[in-house]
Amino acid sequence: GHQSLKIHFHLIYMDYNATTPLEPEVIETISEALQDAWGNPSSNYIAGAKAKAMINQSRENVARMVGGKAEDIIFTSGGTEANNLVLHTAVEHFRRSCRAAEQGEGHQNGSNGLPHIIASNVEHDSVKLVAEHLRRDGKADVTFVPVSKVTARVEVEDVIAEVRPNTCLISVMLANNETGVIMPVQEICQRVRSLNKQREQLRVLVHTDAAQALGKIRVDACELGVDYLTIVGHKFYAPRIGALYVNGPGTRTPLCPMLFGGGQERNFRPGTENTPMIAGLGKAAELVTSNLSEYESHMRSTKLYLEERLKAVFIDKIHFNNHYPGSDILPNTCNVSILGPTLQGWRVLSNCTRLLASVGAACHSDSGNRPSHILLSCGVPSEVAANALRLSVGRGTTKADVDAVVEDLRDTVRLLEGMD
Amino acid sequence: GHQSLKIHFHLIYMDYNATTPLEPEVIETISEALQDAWGNPSSNYIAGAKAKAMINQSRENVARMVGGKAEDIIFTSGGTEANNLVLHTAVEHFRRSCRAAEQGEGHQNGSNGLPHIIASNVEHDSVKLVAEHLRRDGKADVTFVPVSKVTARVEVEDVIAEVRPNTCLISVMLANNETGVIMPVQEICQRVRSLNKQREQLRVLVHTDAAQALGKIRVDACELGVDYLTIVGHKFYAPRIGALYVNGPGTRTPLCPMLFGGGQERNFRPGTENTPMIAGLGKAAELVTSNLSEYESHMRSTKLYLEERLKAVFIDKIHFNNHYPGSDILPNTCNVSILGPTLQGWRVLSNCTRLLASVGAACHSDSGNRPSHILLSCGVPSEVAANALRLSVGRGTTKADVDAVVEDLRDTVRLLEGMD
Repeated sequence: GHQSLKIHFHLIYMDYNATTPLEPEVIETISEALQDAWGNPSSNYIAGAKAKAMINQSRENVARMVGGKAEDIIFTSGGTEANNLVLHTAVEHFRRSCRAAEQGEGHQNGSNGLPHIIASNVEHDSVKLVAEHLRRDGKADVTFVPVSKVTARVEVEDVIAEVRPNTCLISVMLANNETGVIMPVQEICQRVRSLNKQREQLRVLVHTDAAQALGKIRVDACELGVDYLTIVGHKFYAPRIGALYVNGPGTRTPLCPMLFGGGQERNFRPGTENTPMIAGLGKAAELVTSNLSEYESHMRSTKLYLEERLKAVFIDKIHFNNHYPGSDILPNTCNVSILGPTLQGWRVLSNCTRLLASVGAACHSDSGNRPSHILLSCGVPSEVAANALRLSVGRGTTKADVDAVVEDLRDTVRLLEGMD
Repeated sequence: GHQSLKIHFHLIYMDYNATTPLEPEVIETISEALQDAWGNPSSNYIAGAKAKAMINQSRENVARMVGGKAEDIIFTSGGTEANNLVLHTAVEHFRRSCRAAEQGEGHQNGSNGLPHIIASNVEHDSVKLVAEHLRRDGKADVTFVPVSKVTARVEVEDVIAEVRPNTCLISVMLANNETGVIMPVQEICQRVRSLNKQREQLRVLVHTDAAQALGKIRVDACELGVDYLTIVGHKFYAPRIGALYVNGPGTRTPLCPMLFGGGQERNFRPGTENTPMIAGLGKAAELVTSNLSEYESHMRSTKLYLEERLKAVFIDKIHFNNHYPGSDILPNTCNVSILGPTLQGWRVLSNCTRLLASVGAACHSDSGNRPSHILLSCGVPSEVAANALRLSVGRGTTKADVDAVVEDLRDTVRLLEGMD
């Protein structure tokens, strides 16, 4: 079984949504590739061929994990690049189609205006800030659809209602990083598909950032019906690279490169391939394909035990910030506030002696002590959101870890309330 | 068969300009980081802090290697991204300055037209194809200055003669990947500096792609006087990532991000940091800083011995494609043609039993049997260029390796001439 992952013997990591350690088999794969597959994959001799074969094997494993074909996978430096590439493509494809239409070719765009992008208001910054940049730069219109304060999901009708003649892309994450709420991506795709059939204009493309979902719940790009799906290694015990699933890149689905160079990744993403990291990503994907239901049920029962223990110890002094009627939640994510005027999340965490966790997205860790805008969007009251702790468990988290964390929280709360 | 027979021989790698293996100490550093520094560098607790410290240490080591300050280093996924980022910045900065000028602020651009980029005609595809894309897309004017057929260098006067009022960037590689010819980047910078003092317009920025020079010759960004310098790990026994040196990013020198996201790398290059690879890059940079003169003199004497042995065996049947009056060459790069109608480079290499080398850039390995456009640009006659072999030696190449390679070439040439 998995080792419980502790930095020191006494620390307990419950921030698996921020990043995961690498599986020992993944480290082994990377180490072997560092030693033996350092050849340039573009070289014609045996050293290059070995690296190329390793990359292709990884491409198949990553494709299998998301229910796609090997040719649908484009390796990127990470999720940020993959998300940026999708938004870039949508805008660029719209622009090219406008040009072609002006010259009497191809689709009408219905509008000579700007491309229009729809996203939820709880997307990761690597979608949200790209959209805001495009808007500020006069390159796109953007609509952020608020999530429902009842379900914490972005609702299908709310998304579809925002589609305009110039809408080129809908980008909705598969599961939120702070709440773990799973979004109705499949239903959005179904609605968009029938909508596209009636449209004269360029079809609406659908993207989902699956960073937080992969390795935790089953993800099948074909079943979802998305055009693009973002894959982020370090959220599923793989190294710090990523990939973009594209349903038939350059054929069924447009993909406009952001980078130009030596022709790697069929020119969609040039640059000498990071063979060891790609090999590691493939190995981690293989593990997910083989063991997902085991990972999922372990994480779910561990999280349920955590929530039970928290309820048993703190009784009515806690509020779960990610329990919403009818909404499914990632099996590993607990978002909880311990109520009290001195129990802000940052204050609790900095006084815990064993628990390593966060109050929200890691990349917002320098945003100080403001409550999470994600939780506020979900309707969590400001004074409750300020106390939020995101406790995300992993493949190796044990019930003993949970007991220790709950004890740590109890002691910390006593201390902080005593200082009140 | 033939392939399985081959692996019983000791294969000899002489393609260090395509890629290098990793130094054992670099592998060790990466492996340690994979095990122990997997925390998210943005996390506030100890696991994050450890990763962050490792990244900062690497930043200092990489800066020291190129004579810069730690804050001048932006980590990227590789050289392709770094080169793309520079050209993107030049065009974007020009555009923003135009807008500001329209609003009565800042510099005049002297021209309301397009930004103008100057590059040599022997740049790597990650500069050349970006420039061509910008031109085709109507976003920039581009001038490719041909290298001299006498010196194989791009000449300072030829570059300066192309500067126009709307010139925003000059991009000239520090050393060519196929010939090893070292370009007069320092002299270009000196001329541009005095030219900038006289200009009313936006200053001309200078970029050098130092991919092939680092780890082979001394590189000091301040001494060169460049604004941007591209660093590529896998050319100096480091992993497959890179970095961009920018002389005061966002203060003295503009840097406009291509990606938007979680704020890493001071927002210049967001995305969760690839800690192990960054740590490996830093270790490899440290090795270069400590041992450069030893590496350089070993490679130089090995290459000279190779050239001597080739001359001794093939007498007047060879032509060195990178010997030019007055031009300095990288210490490790031999570019040689064995003359004869059946001795095309690809044919010789595919018949060698021990030598692993290439006919030119690895990313052009699928361009079939056409002679290298780089060599043609340098004035090498087409029938000579068709026979070119790029033999690039490394830190560990021995005289015994050289002897074996020359013997392998002699046997191969006999075989191919016998089949004539």
